[in-house]
Amino acid sequence: MTRENYLLWENYMQSCMEDSAHDKEHVYRVLYTALDIARTEREVDYDVLICACLLHDVGRKEQFLNPKLCHAREGARKACEFLMENHFAEDFIVHVRDCIITHRFRSDAPPQSLEAKILFDADKIDVTGAIGIARTLLYKGQVSEPLYSLRSDGQVSDGTDDDRESFFHEYKFKLEGIYDSFYTKRGKEIAEGRRAAAAGFYQNLLRETGEAYREGRALLGDCYEENNAF
Amino acid sequence: MTRENYLLWENYMQSCMEDSAHDKEHVYRVLYTALDIARTEREVDYDVLICACLLHDVGRKEQFLNPKLCHAREGARKACEFLMENHFAEDFIVHVRDCIITHRFRSDAPPQSLEAKILFDADKIDVTGAIGIARTLLYKGQVSEPLYSLRSDGQVSDGTDDDRESFFHEYKFKLEGIYDSFYTKRGKEIAEGRRAAAAGFYQNLLRETGEAYREGRALLGDCYEENNAF
Repeated sequence: MTRENYLLWENYMQSCMEDSAHDKEHVYRVLYTALDIARTEREVDYDVLICACLLHDVGRKEQFLNPKLCHAREGARKACEFLMENHFAEDFIVHVRDCIITHRFRSDAPPQSLEAKILFDADKIDVTGAIGIARTLLYKGQVSEPLYSLRSDGQVSDGTDDDRESFFHEYKFKLEGIYDSFYTKRGKEIAEGRRAAAAGFYQNLLRETGEAYREGRALLGDCYEENNAF
Repeated sequence: MTRENYLLWENYMQSCMEDSAHDKEHVYRVLYTALDIARTEREVDYDVLICACLLHDVGRKEQFLNPKLCHAREGARKACEFLMENHFAEDFIVHVRDCIITHRFRSDAPPQSLEAKILFDADKIDVTGAIGIARTLLYKGQVSEPLYSLRSDGQVSDGTDDDRESFFHEYKFKLEGIYDSFYTKRGKEIAEGRRAAAAGFYQNLLRETGEAYREGRALLGDCYEENNAF
């Protein structure tokens, strides 16, 4: 890879994500993690991998503005257009495009090439561990969703049976089960090394909030005057 | 306390915070934690304590719209007005008002009455442990601040010497040191029980992100063609 190409792709990525510091940090973590995975694999096309990592989320803004759009497909389209304008070879463009289309979790189009599998794994690793928790909470803050829902008895729900969006719901429906969805051995290994950090945080938050509501609501009941039982 | 008064205060609180699910959850946690602390203290005025807990953050919206306003002073003013309109006794109103004015962290007006100290501690407990981490991350998402800053060498800063806002900066400058600022024995005990959860999460997030940048940037350097050294 030439330095010129790296800077060309990086500048384009930054121009697509100038509004979002979180998204840019994520792109660099995905790139760095992908390189960590790549060194344990044979015959990786580093130009394709690095370009696909840098550009994999350039369609985020479009999906944010119109949630019906898929950021993977939108990003692949934008990346194609950008790479064609800059006269990259057709097979390079097609390969990068396919990596970007298939990077999305639960996509009906699973990754095919080695580079696509590495990008997929590196992107999913950013949903594991403490970083997965942190990114989910930043997002919940951005869209004003709560940490937890209350059950019909007024106690904190652990997220398992929730039908409303919350951090606990997201943990139970996405974060907790992500550790089985990796294609590469090194990807699975990094993810496993982070599993306890995520589970521990969830358990601690559930304990702290659950205890407060359990104790507090009982104590509040005791405060009402007798003939005004709540 | 009568059920009628509780519902009156609760309804007013909810009307002030209808836009923010996070803020309402916080108010209930503070109330429940305050009752946990109160049962270990003698001669607590529960009407004052419960009213002050429910109304302590009713000035949040005003501070959000105009950051020059102090939400504690603004909330105390609004609570006073509301309680006067509803014909509560003057000494009750003054006592609740003082609790609300002095609940703010690093205020130049420290809490004086027992009820003010319990509210202060209960509010600070919501900044400790996993819940303190979660609330800080929700806020950082809301105001679009990053998880960490990069040092001049391109590596992740642990927050200690940062002059820019980030989650790690907030952890180092506020969350990490909060455990020494409690007035009640029970408050300090609850906070201490949560300290490891916050510290563990910070260490895990720093390790995950720090490792990705350290390894990844070195590997990226190896990818450049020799005569294009980065």
